[in-house]
Amino acid sequence: MRVAVLGAGSWGTVFAKVLADSGNDVVLWARRPKVAQAIEHRRRNDDYLPGVLLPAGIEATSDLPRALRGAEVVFLSVPSQSLRGLLRDVRPALEPTAIAVSLMKGVEDGTGARMSEVIRQGLALPDDRIAVVSGPNLALEIAREEPTAAVVASTSLDTAMRVASACANRYFGTFMNADVIGTEFGGVLKNLIALAVGIVVGVGYGDNTKASILTRGLAEMSAFAAAFGAQPDTLAGLAGMGDLIATSESPRSRNNRAGRLLGQGYTKDDVLRTMDQVAEGLASLEPVLALAAAKGVEMPICTQVSQVIAGTLDPRDIAPHAAADPLPIGE
Amino acid sequence: MRVAVLGAGSWGTVFAKVLADSGNDVVLWARRPKVAQAIEHRRRNDDYLPGVLLPAGIEATSDLPRALRGAEVVFLSVPSQSLRGLLRDVRPALEPTAIAVSLMKGVEDGTGARMSEVIRQGLALPDDRIAVVSGPNLALEIAREEPTAAVVASTSLDTAMRVASACANRYFGTFMNADVIGTEFGGVLKNLIALAVGIVVGVGYGDNTKASILTRGLAEMSAFAAAFGAQPDTLAGLAGMGDLIATSESPRSRNNRAGRLLGQGYTKDDVLRTMDQVAEGLASLEPVLALAAAKGVEMPICTQVSQVIAGTLDPRDIAPHAAADPLPIGE
Repeated sequence: MRVAVLGAGSWGTVFAKVLADSGNDVVLWARRPKVAQAIEHRRRNDDYLPGVLLPAGIEATSDLPRALRGAEVVFLSVPSQSLRGLLRDVRPALEPTAIAVSLMKGVEDGTGARMSEVIRQGLALPDDRIAVVSGPNLALEIAREEPTAAVVASTSLDTAMRVASACANRYFGTFMNADVIGTEFGGVLKNLIALAVGIVVGVGYGDNTKASILTRGLAEMSAFAAAFGAQPDTLAGLAGMGDLIATSESPRSRNNRAGRLLGQGYTKDDVLRTMDQVAEGLASLEPVLALAAAKGVEMPICTQVSQVIAGTLDPRDIAPHAAADPLPIGE
Repeated sequence: MRVAVLGAGSWGTVFAKVLADSGNDVVLWARRPKVAQAIEHRRRNDDYLPGVLLPAGIEATSDLPRALRGAEVVFLSVPSQSLRGLLRDVRPALEPTAIAVSLMKGVEDGTGARMSEVIRQGLALPDDRIAVVSGPNLALEIAREEPTAAVVASTSLDTAMRVASACANRYFGTFMNADVIGTEFGGVLKNLIALAVGIVVGVGYGDNTKASILTRGLAEMSAFAAAFGAQPDTLAGLAGMGDLIATSESPRSRNNRAGRLLGQGYTKDDVLRTMDQVAEGLASLEPVLALAAAKGVEMPICTQVSQVIAGTLDPRDIAPHAAADPLPIGE
């Protein structure tokens, strides 16, 4: 199948490799001609994926209409805040029956829209031609062909199956569901809990504390997502629990690293100064807490992270149970 | 409240500390007088919990009737296979309205009974006077008062609440549920998935693979437990996911260690030779797979672990998705 990947950052580039290794005819679009040329001629993307040799079959270009020509499925992997702008250029060149797939995790500033919502609006597509892919997918590990699994979600099972078939290969297993909302919120909310895990690791606490924060944090994620229409089971799967664990374990995760610095006693300003890119969790914490409050969802762990950042809670006192309610009924 | 803890291994001893720190009047029973004396006089249990100084209030004894006198709640923490024998001696000395609580994780050889079932039979107690405690509870970390959380399960919410109130303190948060079966199976099944996680870590795979195995492994645990009457949500909580993560992370876990050796290419015989105590997961793997087959529950990860042990699957080829079915519908 002819497929296009738009965006040649580390995840877009690795995903192009996954698709090529699954037997597709892949074109990878890079905004910068220099990046496209390096991929096309030297099978490398040294800016975003140093040390990785890409499969021979990947065609790379910075010409968007050329990338979209004949593509039955178009995978999107650009920075969240630049998606809407890109879609303006995609729309006139999209094949009339193409499926659009989000590989992104985030919400749009200002509108609070999930990436699939931005795609629906920007491309004027019906829901049954939109899918999202999520899961425990650290790009460098997939580049090394270490086995992992991902979820493909679409309101149309046919669409989910076409996309899942297109990417499945011996190191990339795909599962399907119909819960786009839960699958996307998993990718947003896990950054907040990864901050909390980073904090307790930074303090020096061990595996019980970490496991308790992960477990109760997932319960908060599920409650929040369910309030917005997600199936709670989705969050217990690869796009929730799986992604949360991978992010919380990885020393390469910016949210994990930001949390560890907070746990070691650095202030939010200190953390922002030492990091060259913003940790997504720090940016989305307060908006998510405001949404939770509006829906009446309790998020005791996210609230404690917010208190640590505000300097009103010692990181040492962060606890997996709500301080105000020592005996919650839960599972 | 007057409470007794029967069994002065590492978990029973730490649990006595938790109960003392929660304001109870605690008596800890040790089978060996020497252990009881060391706890009573030197506030130490060097055989099982070296380096930990216990709170002053714990009374220790090897006299079982004395330990049980006046105890409103009796916590049991002895090796699984010795529980039934101990209960014969407990029964005549138990206070008429006492609640019995299992702190144990395992099933009885031969009968396959869960620990709460052994308690019900051995003490002739109704279900509403039985509870179980489980969760991500590595004893040494709790001894250091690192914050954690646990679940108290009983078919009687009143009983669960009494027990949960008795153990809650600033570093030990308690949650309640009514699903005794799910809470107990979580503690048994997590050892099997911890073996699988150990294997992929032993091979050298990274955080995606580990997170995928944990997530799909938890789905298997949930399916198995549900087939035996558990609520699937229970497995997504502290007694399933929480305990699974803590066990899979801890280098002190025997199952994790056994898995890592298998992943490095050692045979089961090699592994058994290098370990002084049996890894529980190695013992319960085949019985659990047999039960799963009888109920028609698929357990692809446990099956692959079994194949690695049998030498019919290279540990490198273990995958979070079932090899036979590259596109399962899942979450």
